[in-house]
Amino acid sequence: MWQLYQFPLCPFSRKVRLLLGEKGVGYELVREHPWERRDEFLDMNPAGQTPVVVDTQRGGQPLIDSLAICEYFEETVDKAAMINGTAANRAEVRRLVAWFDNHFYRDVTGLLLHERVVKRVAHRAAPDAKGLRDAMKNAVGHLDYTDYLLDHRNWLAGATMSLADFAAAAQISVADYLGGIDWKGHEQTARWYRGLKSRPSFRPLLAERMEMVGPPPAHYDNVDF
Amino acid sequence: MWQLYQFPLCPFSRKVRLLLGEKGVGYELVREHPWERRDEFLDMNPAGQTPVVVDTQRGGQPLIDSLAICEYFEETVDKAAMINGTAANRAEVRRLVAWFDNHFYRDVTGLLLHERVVKRVAHRAAPDAKGLRDAMKNAVGHLDYTDYLLDHRNWLAGATMSLADFAAAAQISVADYLGGIDWKGHEQTARWYRGLKSRPSFRPLLAERMEMVGPPPAHYDNVDF
Ligand SMILES: N[C@@H](CCC(=O)N[C@@H](CS)C(=O)NCC(=O)O)C(=O)O
Ligand SMILES: N[C@@H](CCC(=O)N[C@@H](CS)C(=O)NCC(=O)O)C(=O)O
Repeated sequence: MWQLYQFPLCPFSRKVRLLLGEKGVGYELVREHPWERRDEFLDMNPAGQTPVVVDTQRGGQPLIDSLAICEYFEETVDKAAMINGTAANRAEVRRLVAWFDNHFYRDVTGLLLHERVVKRVAHRAAPDAKGLRDAMKNAVGHLDYTDYLLDHRNWLAGATMSLADFAAAAQISVADYLGGIDWKGHEQTARWYRGLKSRPSFRPLLAERMEMVGPPPAHYDNVDF
Repeated sequence: MWQLYQFPLCPFSRKVRLLLGEKGVGYELVREHPWERRDEFLDMNPAGQTPVVVDTQRGGQPLIDSLAICEYFEETVDKAAMINGTAANRAEVRRLVAWFDNHFYRDVTGLLLHERVVKRVAHRAAPDAKGLRDAMKNAVGHLDYTDYLLDHRNWLAGATMSLADFAAAAQISVADYLGGIDWKGHEQTARWYRGLKSRPSFRPLLAERMEMVGPPPAHYDNVDF
Protein backbone atom coordinates (compact mmCIF):
# COMPACT_ATOMS: atom_id res chain seq x y z
CA MET A 1 0.00 0.00 0.00
CA TRP A 2 1.27 3.47 -0.86
CA GLN A 3 1.17 6.08 1.86
CA LEU A 4 1.37 9.79 1.06
CA TYR A 5 2.57 12.18 3.79
CA GLN A 6 0.86 15.52 3.24
CA PHE A 7 -1.56 18.14 4.51
CA PRO A 8 -4.69 19.22 2.58
CA LEU A 9 -3.29 22.56 1.36
CA CYS A 10 0.15 21.38 0.23
CA PRO A 11 0.16 22.17 -3.50
CA PHE A 12 3.02 19.76 -4.29
CA SER A 13 1.07 16.91 -2.69
CA ARG A 14 -1.99 17.91 -4.72
CA LYS A 15 -0.03 17.61 -7.95
CA VAL A 16 1.01 14.07 -6.96
CA ARG A 17 -2.57 13.19 -5.94
CA LEU A 18 -4.00 14.39 -9.26
CA LEU A 19 -1.49 12.21 -11.11
CA LEU A 20 -2.15 9.16 -8.91
CA GLY A 21 -5.90 9.70 -9.32
CA GLU A 22 -5.69 9.81 -13.12
CA LYS A 23 -3.47 6.73 -13.13
CA GLY A 24 -5.80 4.83 -10.80
CA VAL A 25 -3.08 4.24 -8.18
CA GLY A 26 -4.57 3.81 -4.70
CA TYR A 27 -2.94 5.39 -1.65
CA GLU A 28 -3.56 6.22 1.97
CA LEU A 29 -3.15 9.75 3.31
CA VAL A 30 -0.94 10.42 6.32
CA ARG A 31 -1.28 13.87 7.80
CA GLU A 32 2.02 15.70 8.18
CA HIS A 33 2.62 19.37 9.04
CA PRO A 34 6.18 20.01 7.85
CA TRP A 35 6.50 23.19 9.93
CA GLU A 36 6.36 21.01 13.07
CA ARG A 37 9.67 19.43 11.99
CA ARG A 38 8.83 16.06 13.56
CA ASP A 39 11.95 13.98 14.18
CA GLU A 40 10.53 10.82 12.58
CA PHE A 41 9.59 12.80 9.48
CA LEU A 42 13.03 14.41 9.23
CA ASP A 43 14.60 10.95 9.51
CA MET A 44 12.56 9.91 6.51
CA ASN A 45 13.13 13.13 4.53
CA PRO A 46 16.10 15.29 5.55
CA ALA A 47 14.59 18.11 3.47
CA GLY A 48 11.65 18.13 5.91
CA GLN A 49 9.11 18.76 3.16
CA THR A 50 5.87 17.22 2.03
CA PRO A 51 5.04 15.21 -0.06
CA VAL A 52 6.76 11.93 0.77
CA VAL A 53 5.49 8.61 -0.58
CA VAL A 54 6.32 5.26 1.05
CA ASP A 55 5.48 1.70 0.16
CA THR A 56 4.32 0.11 3.40
CA GLN A 57 4.49 -3.44 2.04
CA ARG A 58 7.74 -3.53 0.16
CA GLY A 59 9.64 -1.02 2.25
CA GLY A 60 12.58 0.51 0.42
CA GLN A 61 13.60 4.13 0.23
CA PRO A 62 10.82 6.69 0.50
CA LEU A 63 10.02 8.66 -2.65
CA ILE A 64 10.87 12.32 -2.07
CA ASP A 65 10.32 15.53 -4.07
CA SER A 66 7.02 15.88 -5.89
CA LEU A 67 8.52 15.85 -9.39
CA ALA A 68 10.70 12.81 -8.64
CA ILE A 69 7.55 11.10 -7.29
CA CYS A 70 5.57 11.96 -10.43
CA GLU A 71 8.39 10.77 -12.72
CA TYR A 72 8.47 7.50 -10.76
CA PHE A 73 4.77 6.78 -11.30
CA GLU A 74 4.98 7.97 -14.89
CA GLU A 75 7.72 5.38 -15.47
CA THR A 76 6.06 2.52 -13.61
CA VAL A 77 2.35 2.94 -14.49
CA ASP A 78 1.45 3.00 -18.19
CA LYS A 79 -2.10 4.28 -17.76
CA ALA A 80 -2.69 7.99 -18.39
CA ALA A 81 0.78 9.09 -19.55
CA MET A 82 1.16 12.70 -18.42
CA ILE A 83 4.74 13.48 -19.51
CA ASN A 84 4.06 12.56 -23.05
CA GLY A 85 4.85 13.12 -26.73
CA THR A 86 8.18 13.99 -28.33
CA ALA A 87 11.24 14.87 -26.28
CA ALA A 88 10.48 18.54 -27.05
CA ASN A 89 6.89 18.17 -25.81
CA ARG A 90 8.14 16.50 -22.65
CA ALA A 91 10.62 19.33 -22.12
CA GLU A 92 7.75 21.82 -22.38
CA VAL A 93 5.72 19.85 -19.81
CA ARG A 94 8.68 19.86 -17.42
CA ARG A 95 9.41 23.56 -18.02
CA LEU A 96 5.86 24.43 -17.00
CA VAL A 97 5.86 22.09 -14.01
CA ALA A 98 8.99 23.91 -12.81
CA TRP A 99 7.32 27.26 -13.54
CA PHE A 100 4.32 26.52 -11.32
CA ASP A 101 6.28 24.66 -8.63
CA ASN A 102 8.90 27.38 -8.34
CA HIS A 103 7.53 30.68 -9.57
CA PHE A 104 3.80 30.44 -8.88
CA TYR A 105 4.61 28.93 -5.49
CA ARG A 106 7.17 31.63 -4.65
CA ASP A 107 5.00 34.50 -5.92
CA VAL A 108 1.54 33.37 -4.80
CA THR A 109 0.85 30.07 -3.00
CA GLY A 110 3.90 30.08 -0.75
CA LEU A 111 3.13 33.63 0.42
CA LEU A 112 -0.51 32.79 1.11
CA LEU A 113 0.38 29.58 2.97
CA HIS A 114 2.91 31.47 5.03
CA GLU A 115 0.53 34.30 5.92
CA ARG A 116 -2.67 32.32 6.38
CA VAL A 117 -1.57 28.85 7.53
CA VAL A 118 1.95 28.68 8.98
CA LYS A 119 1.69 31.98 10.84
CA ARG A 120 -1.66 31.08 12.36
CA VAL A 121 -0.99 27.46 13.18
CA ALA A 122 2.67 27.56 14.13
CA HIS A 123 3.04 31.07 15.53
CA ARG A 124 -0.55 32.06 16.43
CA ALA A 125 0.13 35.29 14.58
CA ALA A 126 -2.14 37.31 12.29
CA PRO A 127 -1.46 37.47 8.55
CA ASP A 128 0.26 40.54 7.23
CA ALA A 129 -1.99 42.53 4.88
CA LYS A 130 0.89 43.45 2.57
CA GLY A 131 1.88 39.81 2.08
CA LEU A 132 -1.70 38.92 1.14
CA ARG A 133 -1.98 41.87 -1.25
CA ASP A 134 1.32 41.00 -2.94
CA ALA A 135 0.19 37.41 -3.45
CA MET A 136 -3.11 38.50 -5.00
CA LYS A 137 -1.35 40.97 -7.28
CA ASN A 138 1.17 38.34 -8.35
CA ALA A 139 -1.67 35.88 -9.02
CA VAL A 140 -3.12 38.27 -11.61
CA GLY A 141 0.17 38.24 -13.52
CA HIS A 142 0.33 34.48 -13.38
CA LEU A 143 -3.23 34.02 -14.63
CA ASP A 144 -2.46 36.45 -17.45
CA TYR A 145 0.26 34.00 -18.45
CA THR A 146 -2.01 30.93 -18.28
CA ASP A 147 -4.63 32.88 -20.29
CA TYR A 148 -1.95 33.55 -22.89
CA LEU A 149 -0.89 29.89 -23.05
CA LEU A 150 -4.52 28.75 -23.33
CA ASP A 151 -5.12 31.20 -26.18
CA HIS A 152 -2.78 29.05 -28.24
CA ARG A 153 -3.28 25.59 -26.77
CA ASN A 154 -6.05 23.35 -25.44
CA TRP A 155 -4.02 22.41 -22.42
CA LEU A 156 -1.16 24.31 -20.81
CA ALA A 157 1.70 22.37 -22.40
CA GLY A 158 0.04 21.57 -25.73
CA ALA A 159 -2.73 19.53 -27.33
CA THR A 160 -3.22 17.02 -24.51
CA MET A 161 -3.63 17.11 -20.75
CA SER A 162 -0.32 16.73 -18.92
CA LEU A 163 1.43 17.03 -15.60
CA ALA A 164 1.75 20.77 -16.34
CA ASP A 165 -2.03 21.09 -15.95
CA PHE A 166 -1.92 19.25 -12.61
CA ALA A 167 0.99 21.39 -11.37
CA ALA A 168 -0.94 24.54 -12.27
CA ALA A 169 -4.30 23.36 -10.92
CA ALA A 170 -2.62 22.24 -7.68
CA GLN A 171 -1.13 25.69 -7.05
CA ILE A 172 -4.21 27.59 -8.24
CA SER A 173 -6.60 25.50 -6.13
CA VAL A 174 -4.64 26.15 -2.93
CA ALA A 175 -4.43 29.86 -3.74
CA ASP A 176 -8.17 29.86 -4.48
CA TYR A 177 -8.94 28.13 -1.16
CA LEU A 178 -6.99 30.88 0.60
CA GLY A 179 -8.86 33.67 -1.20
CA GLY A 180 -5.94 34.67 -3.41
CA ILE A 181 -7.53 34.30 -6.84
CA ASP A 182 -9.71 36.93 -8.49
CA TRP A 183 -11.30 35.08 -11.41
CA LYS A 184 -12.66 38.21 -13.09
CA GLY A 185 -10.96 38.87 -16.42
CA HIS A 186 -9.42 35.40 -16.66
CA GLU A 187 -12.04 33.58 -18.71
CA GLN A 188 -9.57 31.32 -20.56
CA THR A 189 -8.02 30.03 -17.38
CA ALA A 190 -11.43 29.77 -15.66
CA ARG A 191 -12.79 27.60 -18.49
CA TRP A 192 -9.75 25.30 -18.39
CA TYR A 193 -9.97 25.11 -14.58
CA ARG A 194 -13.68 24.22 -14.63
CA GLY A 195 -12.80 21.27 -16.88
CA LEU A 196 -10.22 20.04 -14.40
CA LYS A 197 -12.43 20.62 -11.35
CA SER A 198 -15.05 18.23 -12.67
CA ARG A 199 -12.60 15.31 -13.03
CA PRO A 200 -12.96 12.44 -10.55
CA SER A 201 -9.30 12.85 -9.65
CA PHE A 202 -9.91 16.43 -8.46
CA ARG A 203 -13.28 16.17 -6.69
CA PRO A 204 -12.02 14.51 -3.47
CA LEU A 205 -9.29 17.16 -3.08
CA LEU A 206 -11.80 19.96 -3.43
CA ALA A 207 -14.04 18.36 -0.80
CA GLU A 208 -11.35 18.45 1.89
CA ARG A 209 -11.13 21.24 4.43
CA MET A 210 -8.33 22.41 6.65
CA GLU A 211 -10.10 23.20 9.90
CA MET A 212 -7.55 25.53 11.46
CA VAL A 213 -7.68 27.87 8.45
CA GLY A 214 -11.36 28.67 8.05
CA PRO A 215 -13.58 27.83 5.08
CA PRO A 216 -12.72 28.58 1.43
CA PRO A 217 -14.81 31.06 -0.64
CA ALA A 218 -18.19 29.75 -1.81
CA HIS A 219 -17.09 29.26 -5.42
CA TYR A 220 -14.06 27.13 -4.42
CA ASP A 221 -15.49 23.65 -5.02
CA ASN A 222 -18.28 24.66 -7.40
CA VAL A 223 -17.45 23.07 -10.75
CA ASP A 224 -19.73 25.48 -12.61
CA PHE A 225 -18.12 28.60 -11.29
CA MET B 1 24.26 23.97 -33.18
CA TRP B 2 23.16 24.15 -29.55
CA GLN B 3 23.60 27.44 -27.77
CA LEU B 4 23.63 27.64 -23.97
CA TYR B 5 22.75 30.97 -22.34
CA GLN B 6 24.65 31.19 -19.06
CA PHE B 7 27.33 32.94 -17.01
CA PRO B 8 30.41 31.15 -15.63
CA LEU B 9 29.20 30.97 -12.01
CA CYS B 10 25.62 29.80 -12.67
CA PRO B 11 25.46 26.41 -10.90
CA PHE B 12 22.41 25.22 -12.86
CA SER B 13 24.24 25.88 -16.13
CA ARG B 14 27.25 23.99 -14.79
CA LYS B 15 25.10 20.92 -14.11
CA VAL B 16 23.87 21.03 -17.73
CA ARG B 17 27.43 21.53 -19.03
CA LEU B 18 28.76 18.54 -17.08
CA LEU B 19 26.01 16.37 -18.55
CA LEU B 20 26.57 17.64 -22.11
CA GLY B 21 30.31 17.13 -21.68
CA GLU B 22 29.91 13.52 -20.56
CA LYS B 23 27.48 12.86 -23.40
CA GLY B 24 29.79 14.44 -25.96
CA VAL B 25 27.18 16.98 -27.10
CA GLY B 26 28.81 20.13 -28.52
CA TYR B 27 27.48 23.58 -27.71
CA GLU B 28 28.33 27.24 -27.91
CA LEU B 29 28.25 29.48 -24.86
CA VAL B 30 26.25 32.71 -24.90
CA ARG B 31 26.93 35.01 -21.98
CA GLU B 32 23.77 36.09 -20.14
CA HIS B 33 23.48 37.92 -16.82
CA PRO B 34 19.91 37.19 -15.69
CA TRP B 35 19.91 40.06 -13.16
CA GLU B 36 20.08 42.50 -16.10
CA ARG B 37 16.62 41.27 -17.17
CA ARG B 38 17.29 41.83 -20.88
CA ASP B 39 14.07 42.10 -22.87
CA GLU B 40 15.19 39.63 -25.56
CA PHE B 41 16.10 37.11 -22.88
CA LEU B 42 12.77 37.53 -21.08
CA ASP B 43 10.98 37.01 -24.39
CA MET B 44 12.78 33.69 -24.71
CA ASN B 45 12.33 32.66 -21.05
CA PRO B 46 9.57 34.42 -19.08
CA ALA B 47 11.17 33.05 -15.89
CA GLY B 48 14.22 35.21 -16.67
CA GLN B 49 16.67 32.54 -15.47
CA THR B 50 19.73 30.83 -16.84
CA PRO B 51 20.30 28.22 -18.26
CA VAL B 52 18.39 28.29 -21.53
CA VAL B 53 19.36 26.04 -24.46
CA VAL B 54 18.38 26.79 -28.05
CA ASP B 55 18.90 24.93 -31.29
CA THR B 56 20.12 27.57 -33.76
CA GLN B 57 19.63 25.33 -36.81
CA ARG B 58 16.29 23.72 -36.23
CA GLY B 59 14.67 26.52 -34.26
CA GLY B 60 11.75 25.37 -32.13
CA GLN B 61 11.01 26.22 -28.55
CA PRO B 62 13.98 26.95 -26.30
CA LEU B 63 14.74 24.38 -23.60
CA ILE B 64 14.19 25.96 -20.19
CA ASP B 65 14.85 24.84 -16.60
CA SER B 66 18.06 22.95 -15.95
CA LEU B 67 16.39 19.68 -14.97
CA ALA B 68 14.04 19.75 -17.99
CA ILE B 69 17.13 20.39 -20.15
CA CYS B 70 18.99 17.44 -18.59
CA GLU B 71 15.99 15.12 -18.98
CA TYR B 72 15.78 16.17 -22.65
CA PHE B 73 19.38 15.20 -23.40
CA GLU B 74 19.06 12.07 -21.28
CA GLU B 75 16.12 11.02 -23.49
CA THR B 76 17.68 11.96 -26.82
CA VAL B 77 21.36 10.96 -26.38
CA ASP B 78 22.06 7.35 -25.38
CA LYS B 79 25.70 7.84 -24.46
CA ALA B 80 26.51 8.14 -20.75
CA ALA B 81 23.08 7.59 -19.20
CA MET B 82 23.02 9.64 -16.01
CA ILE B 83 19.44 9.05 -14.76
CA ASN B 84 19.87 5.35 -14.75
CA GLY B 85 18.92 2.01 -13.19
CA THR B 86 15.57 0.93 -11.75
CA ALA B 87 12.69 3.35 -11.27
CA ALA B 88 13.66 3.52 -7.58
CA ASN B 89 17.29 4.37 -8.46
CA ARG B 90 16.09 7.05 -10.84
CA ALA B 91 13.85 8.50 -8.11
CA GLU B 92 16.88 8.68 -5.81
CA VAL B 93 18.90 10.51 -8.50
CA ARG B 94 16.07 13.02 -8.97
CA ARG B 95 15.57 13.46 -5.20
CA LEU B 96 19.22 14.41 -4.82
CA VAL B 97 19.22 16.69 -7.88
CA ALA B 98 16.30 18.53 -6.27
CA TRP B 99 18.16 18.59 -2.94
CA PHE B 100 21.21 20.33 -4.42
CA ASP B 101 19.27 22.55 -6.81
CA ASN B 102 16.86 23.74 -4.14
CA HIS B 103 18.39 23.33 -0.70
CA PHE B 104 22.13 23.65 -1.32
CA TYR B 105 21.39 26.58 -3.63
CA ARG B 106 19.08 28.28 -1.12
CA ASP B 107 21.38 27.68 1.87
CA VAL B 108 24.80 28.21 0.28
CA THR B 109 25.35 29.02 -3.40
CA GLY B 110 22.43 31.40 -3.83
CA LEU B 111 23.50 33.41 -0.76
CA LEU B 112 27.12 33.59 -1.97
CA LEU B 113 26.11 34.60 -5.49
CA HIS B 114 23.82 37.27 -4.10
CA GLU B 115 26.43 38.70 -1.73
CA ARG B 116 29.50 38.40 -3.94
CA VAL B 117 28.23 38.67 -7.52
CA VAL B 118 24.79 40.26 -7.88
CA LYS B 119 25.37 42.92 -5.21
CA ARG B 120 28.71 43.91 -6.67
CA VAL B 121 27.82 43.77 -10.35
CA ALA B 122 24.23 44.98 -10.29
CA HIS B 123 24.18 47.27 -7.27
CA ARG B 124 27.87 48.17 -6.77
CA ALA B 125 27.35 47.28 -3.11
CA ALA B 126 29.64 45.44 -0.71
CA PRO B 127 28.79 41.95 0.50
CA ASP B 128 27.19 41.59 3.90
CA ALA B 129 29.46 39.70 6.32
CA LYS B 130 26.55 37.92 7.99
CA GLY B 131 25.28 36.56 4.67
CA LEU B 132 28.73 35.18 3.86
CA ARG B 133 29.09 33.64 7.33
CA ASP B 134 25.66 31.99 7.12
CA ALA B 135 26.50 30.49 3.74
CA MET B 136 29.80 29.06 5.03
CA LYS B 137 28.09 27.62 8.10
CA ASN B 138 25.34 26.08 6.00
CA ALA B 139 27.96 24.59 3.66
CA VAL B 140 29.43 22.62 6.57
CA GLY B 141 26.06 21.01 7.25
CA HIS B 142 25.63 20.17 3.58
CA LEU B 143 29.09 18.58 3.28
CA ASP B 144 28.34 16.56 6.42
CA TYR B 145 25.40 15.15 4.47
CA THR B 146 27.46 14.35 1.34
CA ASP B 147 30.10 12.74 3.62
CA TYR B 148 27.33 10.59 5.11
CA LEU B 149 26.02 9.56 1.67
CA LEU B 150 29.55 8.73 0.46
CA ASP B 151 30.16 6.59 3.55
CA HIS B 152 27.56 4.21 2.15
CA ARG B 153 27.91 4.67 -1.60
CA ASN B 154 30.57 5.17 -4.26
CA TRP B 155 28.64 7.99 -5.84
CA LEU B 156 26.01 10.24 -4.30
CA ALA B 157 22.94 8.40 -5.59
CA GLY B 158 24.36 4.86 -5.58
CA ALA B 159 26.89 2.60 -7.26
CA THR B 160 27.34 4.61 -10.45
CA MET B 161 27.97 8.22 -11.39
CA SER B 162 24.73 10.12 -12.06
CA LEU B 163 23.19 13.51 -12.56
CA ALA B 164 23.08 13.81 -8.75
CA ASP B 165 26.90 14.00 -8.75
CA PHE B 166 26.83 16.74 -11.39
CA ALA B 167 24.16 18.70 -9.53
CA ALA B 168 26.25 18.53 -6.35
CA ALA B 169 29.58 19.28 -8.03
CA ALA B 170 28.01 22.21 -9.87
CA GLN B 171 26.80 23.84 -6.65
CA ILE B 172 29.94 22.98 -4.67
CA SER B 173 32.28 24.29 -7.37
CA VAL B 174 30.56 27.67 -7.49
CA ALA B 175 30.55 27.90 -3.69
CA ASP B 176 34.25 26.92 -3.70
CA TYR B 177 35.07 29.61 -6.29
CA LEU B 178 33.41 32.16 -4.01
CA GLY B 179 35.37 31.03 -0.94
CA GLY B 180 32.41 29.37 0.76
CA ILE B 181 33.79 25.86 1.25
CA ASP B 182 36.08 24.82 4.09
CA TRP B 183 37.37 21.41 3.02
CA LYS B 184 38.85 20.52 6.40
CA GLY B 185 37.03 17.61 8.01
CA HIS B 186 35.24 16.57 4.81
CA GLU B 187 37.61 13.94 3.47
CA GLN B 188 34.91 11.73 1.91
CA THR B 189 33.43 14.57 -0.09
CA ALA B 190 36.89 15.92 -0.97
CA ARG B 191 37.96 12.53 -2.40
CA TRP B 192 34.77 12.22 -4.47
CA TYR B 193 35.17 15.83 -5.66
CA ARG B 194 38.81 15.29 -6.71
CA GLY B 195 37.60 12.43 -8.91
CA LEU B 196 35.08 14.66 -10.63
CA LYS B 197 37.47 17.58 -10.98
CA SER B 198 39.85 15.51 -13.08
CA ARG B 199 37.18 14.56 -15.65
CA PRO B 200 37.49 16.16 -19.09
CA SER B 201 33.89 17.40 -18.75
CA PHE B 202 34.81 19.44 -15.66
CA ARG B 203 38.25 20.83 -16.55
CA PRO B 204 37.04 23.58 -18.94
CA LEU B 205 34.53 24.85 -16.36
CA LEU B 206 37.22 25.08 -13.69
CA ALA B 207 39.48 27.02 -16.06
CA GLU B 208 36.95 29.84 -16.55
CA ARG B 209 37.06 33.03 -14.53
CA MET B 210 34.45 35.67 -13.85
CA GLU B 211 36.44 38.88 -14.05
CA MET B 212 34.15 41.17 -12.08
CA VAL B 213 34.29 38.87 -9.04
CA GLY B 214 37.99 38.43 -8.36
CA PRO B 215 39.99 35.22 -8.49
CA PRO B 216 39.02 31.97 -6.75
CA PRO B 217 41.13 30.49 -3.95
CA ALA B 218 44.35 28.77 -5.06
CA HIS B 219 43.03 25.24 -4.51
CA TYR B 220 39.93 25.85 -6.65
CA ASP B 221 41.07 24.27 -9.92
CA ASN B 222 43.78 22.06 -8.45
CA VAL B 223 42.68 18.48 -9.05
CA ASP B 224 45.02 17.16 -6.36
CA PHE B 225 43.68 19.34 -3.61
N1 LIG C 1 10.56 20.64 -4.15
C1 LIG C 1 9.62 20.13 -3.15
C2 LIG C 1 8.90 21.28 -2.48
C3 LIG C 1 7.93 20.80 -1.41
C4 LIG C 1 7.50 21.92 -0.44
O1 LIG C 1 7.97 23.07 -0.53
N2 LIG C 1 6.60 21.56 0.48
C5 LIG C 1 6.17 22.50 1.50
C6 LIG C 1 4.71 22.27 1.87
S1 LIG C 1 3.62 22.76 0.58
C7 LIG C 1 6.96 22.23 2.76
O2 LIG C 1 7.14 21.08 3.16
N3 LIG C 1 7.47 23.30 3.40
C8 LIG C 1 8.20 23.21 4.63
C9 LIG C 1 9.64 23.53 4.44
O3 LIG C 1 10.08 23.88 3.33
O4 LIG C 1 10.38 23.45 5.45
C10 LIG C 1 8.65 19.21 -3.87
O5 LIG C 1 8.34 19.47 -5.04
O6 LIG C 1 8.24 18.20 -3.27
N1 LIG D 1 14.96 26.12 -11.64
C1 LIG D 1 15.91 26.87 -12.45
C2 LIG D 1 16.74 27.78 -11.57
C3 LIG D 1 17.73 28.60 -12.35
C4 LIG D 1 18.28 29.80 -11.56
O1 LIG D 1 17.90 30.05 -10.40
N2 LIG D 1 19.21 30.54 -12.20
C5 LIG D 1 19.75 31.73 -11.61
C6 LIG D 1 21.20 31.93 -12.00
S1 LIG D 1 22.26 30.75 -11.24
C7 LIG D 1 19.01 32.94 -12.14
O2 LIG D 1 18.79 33.01 -13.34
N3 LIG D 1 18.61 33.86 -11.25
C8 LIG D 1 17.96 35.06 -11.63
C9 LIG D 1 16.51 35.09 -11.19
O3 LIG D 1 16.05 34.13 -10.55
O4 LIG D 1 15.83 36.07 -11.51
C10 LIG D 1 16.77 25.88 -13.20
O5 LIG D 1 17.04 24.80 -12.66
O6 LIG D 1 17.15 26.17 -14.35
